Amino acid sequence: MAATERLVIIGGDAAGMSAASQARRMKGPDELEIVAFERGNFSSYSACGIPYWVGGDVGERDGLIARNPEEHRARAIELRMRTEVTEIDVAGGRVRARDAGTGAESWTGYDKLVIATGARPIRPALPGIDAPGVHGLQTLDDGQALLDTLSRTEGRRAVVVGAGYIGVEMAEALLKRGYEVTVVNRGEQPMATLDPDMGRLVHEAMSGMGITTVSGTAVTGILTGDDGRVRAVATDSAEHPADVVVLGIGVEPETALARAAGLPLGRHGGLLTDLAMRVRGHENIWAGGDCVEVLDLVSGRERHIALGTHANKHGQVIGANVGGGYGTFPGVVGTAVSKVCELEIARTGLREKDARAVGLQYVTATIESTSRAGYYPAAAPMTVKMLAERRTGRLLGVQIVGREGAGKRVDVAAVALTAGMTVDQMTALDLGYAPPFSPVWDPVLVAARKASAAVRKERG
Amino acid sequence: MAATERLVIIGGDAAGMSAASQARRMKGPDELEIVAFERGNFSSYSACGIPYWVGGDVGERDGLIARNPEEHRARAIELRMRTEVTEIDVAGGRVRARDAGTGAESWTGYDKLVIATGARPIRPALPGIDAPGVHGLQTLDDGQALLDTLSRTEGRRAVVVGAGYIGVEMAEALLKRGYEVTVVNRGEQPMATLDPDMGRLVHEAMSGMGITTVSGTAVTGILTGDDGRVRAVATDSAEHPADVVVLGIGVEPETALARAAGLPLGRHGGLLTDLAMRVRGHENIWAGGDCVEVLDLVSGRERHIALGTHANKHGQVIGANVGGGYGTFPGVVGTAVSKVCELEIARTGLREKDARAVGLQYVTATIESTSRAGYYPAAAPMTVKMLAERRTGRLLGVQIVGREGAGKRVDVAAVALTAGMTVDQMTALDLGYAPPFSPVWDPVLVAARKASAAVRKERG
Repeated sequence: MAATERLVIIGGDAAGMSAASQARRMKGPDELEIVAFERGNFSSYSACGIPYWVGGDVGERDGLIARNPEEHRARAIELRMRTEVTEIDVAGGRVRARDAGTGAESWTGYDKLVIATGARPIRPALPGIDAPGVHGLQTLDDGQALLDTLSRTEGRRAVVVGAGYIGVEMAEALLKRGYEVTVVNRGEQPMATLDPDMGRLVHEAMSGMGITTVSGTAVTGILTGDDGRVRAVATDSAEHPADVVVLGIGVEPETALARAAGLPLGRHGGLLTDLAMRVRGHENIWAGGDCVEVLDLVSGRERHIALGTHANKHGQVIGANVGGGYGTFPGVVGTAVSKVCELEIARTGLREKDARAVGLQYVTATIESTSRAGYYPAAAPMTVKMLAERRTGRLLGVQIVGREGAGKRVDVAAVALTAGMTVDQMTALDLGYAPPFSPVWDPVLVAARKASAAVRKERG
Repeated sequence: MAATERLVIIGGDAAGMSAASQARRMKGPDELEIVAFERGNFSSYSACGIPYWVGGDVGERDGLIARNPEEHRARAIELRMRTEVTEIDVAGGRVRARDAGTGAESWTGYDKLVIATGARPIRPALPGIDAPGVHGLQTLDDGQALLDTLSRTEGRRAVVVGAGYIGVEMAEALLKRGYEVTVVNRGEQPMATLDPDMGRLVHEAMSGMGITTVSGTAVTGILTGDDGRVRAVATDSAEHPADVVVLGIGVEPETALARAAGLPLGRHGGLLTDLAMRVRGHENIWAGGDCVEVLDLVSGRERHIALGTHANKHGQVIGANVGGGYGTFPGVVGTAVSKVCELEIARTGLREKDARAVGLQYVTATIESTSRAGYYPAAAPMTVKMLAERRTGRLLGVQIVGREGAGKRVDVAAVALTAGMTVDQMTALDLGYAPPFSPVWDPVLVAARKASAAVRKERG
């Protein structure tokens, strides 16, 4: 029998615990000891679900927890909750951890290490940012704190800072809680992950829902009342009254530990790994989830994308490799989907500015169509924008804004991007058609036809 | 200026009129005269929409008509309604047509010919098949005739013969009209376009809706009452009382004209074309829509698939080529999607028996998942079955049975099939994820993971 190895995992959420689970499926406790450290109060939960819990769609916090510490322990995964790793000693092959309850620190040796420390919300150094009533939203504890504030708040005005995924999802959640919602964002339009022409559609739809969006505006401070609580959000030009403020500015990789340990970080501050999710230059260290950079297969550049679905895939790959199997994470094409009330928003691949940034020339096509045959009930409008490389016609990106049935259509483009298809090839795709599901030309095909014509015109 | 050419089109529905429209976009009336013959009363309508009109989802017949004869004529397309082509004289470059009103026949010469004669419903030679109360459902006139019967019928019992797409869609329509519905079909399970294990899920769901499905049973005759009207459908073992009977047995290519003219037909009776939709061996004759056979890119064999979305693509390609441009229809992967009330049914690629028929060995994986994150409201269950080639792991087919959000997920597999992906490659696909849209592992990815594991196990 082989000697027992010890696998240490830093971070008890999606990437870390997926890795633990997969490794355990491949090797039993007699071959592999697994110790995971989680500094927070929860393991393996869906951070993406927090806005829906706050908004009331999900009734119970525990619904967001895929697997609690006891369930992990039942599978011989030793999960130490409320225990923060404070140092990685790469040369010594050990980590130092502190028990948040007792303050005691101790070293734990590892044969193999997985870093899954996640991301932290960006929290700008603004006056008043720490005032009661101002909430970030990263953990279940953050969600509970916001819900507590909402239940105690008498006023009904909420300001969301930032109009990315978290920003717009929180706008929906607060609207559902009965708040008057104002979203303040620095970008030209909400959803900067879209081109501005598509972001404008989001702005218009949000206006229609009664959400005020203030764009092109930086927050200069949080104003507080005599009670010390937030009373408004200040910008250069205005004060927006607020009984509660939610920060949804974005996240950055949580890699302070990795940096201190001298591990390789990329230009976005995330850990750099190889295709097997091994930290570059370190045979026995893997990293995955929101703390790593991923290869964008369309641009050929590394990006930082904090998304649970990637974290789970990373964990799966790491677990397979750690367990003596084989797996790779080839990269992403940048697919994301979100919604604000009934509005669905999706994107994959490159925006116009992404294409320009890597030297790609392109044509664009934007079309309007419907989710179902036009004559079928509940056929809902959608707008599809497609980018194709000039001359080659290779698909570069797709953005969709619409209603029910719009968002997941982006998956067709995600697969086509992965396969390196041209928009001309896409015009012949055999997509599912029946009147309740699609017009006879699926909107993605309509966009491909128009993009293909644009490519031909450019050539001429 | 070039001499004016004449393009003659036989059949004024999806393929024919798409070809006409596209040709007209490319060439004006001074270059190209376009004459189309349609033997029926309607042009350019959605036959796929008829079940929803009968069921009441679509209120107006004319909602199904994409473009009426006047609209075509306004674009200089001469559409002769109620005029049936009775002969193609290939050597003479002309067609003979008969005006249904006057009975007058005349010849029209062509420089280029498009055959778009569609398909005809299979109507078995059963005793009583022509009795009042027995309806096929191919044209808008058929739909109107059925609606007339329904409005006059006092009884509330309907029997649908056949459990393919039309059969199950008509079962839904009749259920919505308040009928007790029995579906009689010869196959082992309803939806023979699925493997029987997936068809059984459809059977169970239909039972739950109150639809009686009698499988593995051939109809032996239609029984009539003293008034000559239908009163029951007879099988070997039973009589199923019926106030109205709908035939949904399937269709076959309408190629009697082409056969008489000596044009090449395939083993399913459809016209054989090249990739540009030109009839093989005939420089100036094209064919498209339900009267042709198409190449199945997965099996490498020709198939007959009557589907509006293919017909439209064929028309587009034919119009481009006829108009002096260039286009091809590379083939299909066999994608189809349908629904019975809330049940969504989808398939693409090969079934088990299709794979066996062409000598492919395969592994299968079947998984259950949900349309949205499990904790999100209205997350609906779905079953996904995936076939992958033994050893290579190449995706061969996907079948999905589920509720809202299940059906169009088949498009991911359709693109992956087109691209020749392996199921292992599919596990890394960057599909859109957010709790309202998908579990963190999309059901298609879960199936790909299980299929990939099955491929590895077979290799070992």
